[in-house]
Amino acid sequence: MSLDDLKQAVLEANLATVRNGLVIATFGNASAIDRASGQVVIKPSGVPYDRMTADCMVVSDLDGRVLDNRMRPSSDLDTHLVLYRAFPGVGAVIHTHSTFATILAQCLCPIPPMGTTHADYFHGTIPVTRHLTPEEITSDYVRATGEVIVETFRDLDPDTIPAVLVAGHGPFVWGQTPEEAVMNATILEEVAKFAWHGMMLRPGAPQIPAALLDRHFLRKHGAGATYGQPT
Amino acid sequence: MSLDDLKQAVLEANLATVRNGLVIATFGNASAIDRASGQVVIKPSGVPYDRMTADCMVVSDLDGRVLDNRMRPSSDLDTHLVLYRAFPGVGAVIHTHSTFATILAQCLCPIPPMGTTHADYFHGTIPVTRHLTPEEITSDYVRATGEVIVETFRDLDPDTIPAVLVAGHGPFVWGQTPEEAVMNATILEEVAKFAWHGMMLRPGAPQIPAALLDRHFLRKHGAGATYGQPT
Amino acid sequence: MSLDDLKQAVLEANLATVRNGLVIATFGNASAIDRASGQVVIKPSGVPYDRMTADCMVVSDLDGRVLDNRMRPSSDLDTHLVLYRAFPGVGAVIHTHSTFATILAQCLCPIPPMGTTHADYFHGTIPVTRHLTPEEITSDYVRATGEVIVETFRDLDPDTIPAVLVAGHGPFVWGQTPEEAVMNATILEEVAKFAWHGMMLRPGAPQIPAALLDRHFLRKHGAGATYGQPT
Amino acid sequence: MSLDDLKQAVLEANLATVRNGLVIATFGNASAIDRASGQVVIKPSGVPYDRMTADCMVVSDLDGRVLDNRMRPSSDLDTHLVLYRAFPGVGAVIHTHSTFATILAQCLCPIPPMGTTHADYFHGTIPVTRHLTPEEITSDYVRATGEVIVETFRDLDPDTIPAVLVAGHGPFVWGQTPEEAVMNATILEEVAKFAWHGMMLRPGAPQIPAALLDRHFLRKHGAGATYGQPT
Repeated sequence: MSLDDLKQAVLEANLATVRNGLVIATFGNASAIDRASGQVVIKPSGVPYDRMTADCMVVSDLDGRVLDNRMRPSSDLDTHLVLYRAFPGVGAVIHTHSTFATILAQCLCPIPPMGTTHADYFHGTIPVTRHLTPEEITSDYVRATGEVIVETFRDLDPDTIPAVLVAGHGPFVWGQTPEEAVMNATILEEVAKFAWHGMMLRPGAPQIPAALLDRHFLRKHGAGATYGQPT
Repeated sequence: MSLDDLKQAVLEANLATVRNGLVIATFGNASAIDRASGQVVIKPSGVPYDRMTADCMVVSDLDGRVLDNRMRPSSDLDTHLVLYRAFPGVGAVIHTHSTFATILAQCLCPIPPMGTTHADYFHGTIPVTRHLTPEEITSDYVRATGEVIVETFRDLDPDTIPAVLVAGHGPFVWGQTPEEAVMNATILEEVAKFAWHGMMLRPGAPQIPAALLDRHFLRKHGAGATYGQPT
Repeated sequence: MSLDDLKQAVLEANLATVRNGLVIATFGNASAIDRASGQVVIKPSGVPYDRMTADCMVVSDLDGRVLDNRMRPSSDLDTHLVLYRAFPGVGAVIHTHSTFATILAQCLCPIPPMGTTHADYFHGTIPVTRHLTPEEITSDYVRATGEVIVETFRDLDPDTIPAVLVAGHGPFVWGQTPEEAVMNATILEEVAKFAWHGMMLRPGAPQIPAALLDRHFLRKHGAGATYGQPT
Repeated sequence: MSLDDLKQAVLEANLATVRNGLVIATFGNASAIDRASGQVVIKPSGVPYDRMTADCMVVSDLDGRVLDNRMRPSSDLDTHLVLYRAFPGVGAVIHTHSTFATILAQCLCPIPPMGTTHADYFHGTIPVTRHLTPEEITSDYVRATGEVIVETFRDLDPDTIPAVLVAGHGPFVWGQTPEEAVMNATILEEVAKFAWHGMMLRPGAPQIPAALLDRHFLRKHGAGATYGQPT
């Protein structure tokens, strides 16, 4: 994929988060990486969505050196970069303040697999990070946000649980492609909505059987997937 | 009705579930049966709704033998087939992950008749299935989903209670025609929304008097129906 | 106003209830009365809203004698007629199953004045009827629904509290004109939404001071009203 | 900015509150001040939004003397004027009955900083006023509403907490410009929605660390702001 195509795909991912009701104002940002060149394309900072074009997308390397000088990158760039460096299977990252995912992030409430909607996309509980320390917040805050996500996944597989709730902030979601990351962010909001309402009605928050979790996740993902049309 | 007309009706039922806000992504599927020929028409698996045409609809017989080879049928086909075989009055089946019906399915919470909106379409409590056993999940899962629905209706009438919540999954809904199944799925989501909010405010979940349940259901259904225009 | 104009106004009131999100499917109906002639114009029964024209509106007298033979009137006609006979200040009646008003009706939960939004349109608590008896339900149910509303207003003023929640059913709302009834039905749903959420957060359901209730209601209604532009 | 430009900006702010889902019916009003001349431009009273033009905007001085005679100003004008006189940094004021902000105002429930969405726009808890006394309500009610807001901010900075919930009524929000006030009103509704749901799930209402509140607010506001593009 050319750099221009990647910019277009990142633009479309950003616009899709707005269209899918995940982002208001300028909250939220999407990026993607070209693994061959190590170039990362990300939304610019604070530009209204209705004036955003593919040309506005900012290119940086994996160390955060901006490779063009037109616009300032998203203020969350360093978080994205930490994820790209730590999770080699990730091709795109999306951050939103979508309603129910943010509510649960604010409540420090992980999302257990309560139904097959969850199991179709996330192979286990979606975790919440710890809060950053005052020191982390006042020094290199944006990078520390990425690092606390990586810390949270020390014993988890980011390829099968492609989302996290950052404590007191909101969700970061990823995928192999921008389209997949958009889909994961959209489904995350849906399962967060289901989870909030389920936890309110049944504080015990019943989880689905492990066999059902496996059955649904594995029919859509991995070598044995049978869902969809043969490609 | 010709097979082409049935494909068109099934396509429209699938699109209506999206338009009525019952389905996001590719969750959900609608089918219908031609009782004369025993042919079942169902949505293909994993095809985006905006690219779906009547030609994409897959035809199978009641044993699941696909009668054309163009596309893979919905991964839930076998559940639909069990329902067509067990419930002779059913002409169309719809599965969605609509918000409140899914939340209640995840909470294993049946929907009692709390108001006349419910009574206009469902003549009693909408039940929840038991969870499938690990053995059922790991062997013939999709067929077992249909069988646990039939088991749930052992002492219930599927013609007057045309919906069920599958535990940890979501609703299956049916009707004599695709249009009726769409309407039942839409009203189910509405009464599920009412039920969730009512159970939160009044944990006792007050039900309507039996006489009111009968009055509303029977003025819209059966030989004595008086609702609507004479046909 | 000519009968044709009244039909047009009733059609528009019915369509406005759909447009304002108060009605799905064919739930809901609006009517109006010409007090000079005693003629009542009401929606037909079970006709989809997108095929409804002014010509579909049914005309009856105050005793329910249909004055034209084209279409069957709304199944709730007799409830409307009881209200027109009992409440001389009422010029239009609307029935909906709007979400939060219906939820509170199902919970037998009156709506106290918890804020100025309520006070701007309703001068006190919006009451809930008692449930009808089995005898009332099995004999002349629709008329009995009207009569239990009138009973509920024995000590209330329908001109300053233009709405009621019918137990286990949903709201009936009225006004001097179809436009006013539509507005009252829309605001009722809004204050019902506020009330449900307020009662969940603060079970004590704090009410506004009596002076604030009077101040807001009376600046919009009655001889001393100062709201809006001079007419 | 000319008076005509200010009228246009105030019109657009009023229309934006409707477009952003903050206002139904004719609830809500927006105004702005030209600090050089002391002229205030505000929405007229009770005019439907779809018939509102820039010419309808009413001009008054800071003492409430209407400088043109065409239309009656918003019934809340005197509240706006108190805020302009007391808060010299305020250039525009918006009042709405937006859903969750109003629900919390009715519950007398302040909004603590529970997440970074809040911190990006409000540098601390959004307060609730006390209820007005019967005497205040029956005498100069609208002015008293402004005065109780000013009283509530005796120890708070209106430039960094640009919103308040008026007890039993709804939010007043402000900003340096009409555009900023619209944004603040929109974000207020979002954080109120987050807060209601968070308080329901976790009655303790966890707040974010003080360092995180500072970090997010100060990267968007004040001399050290780094968010957005260089101007």
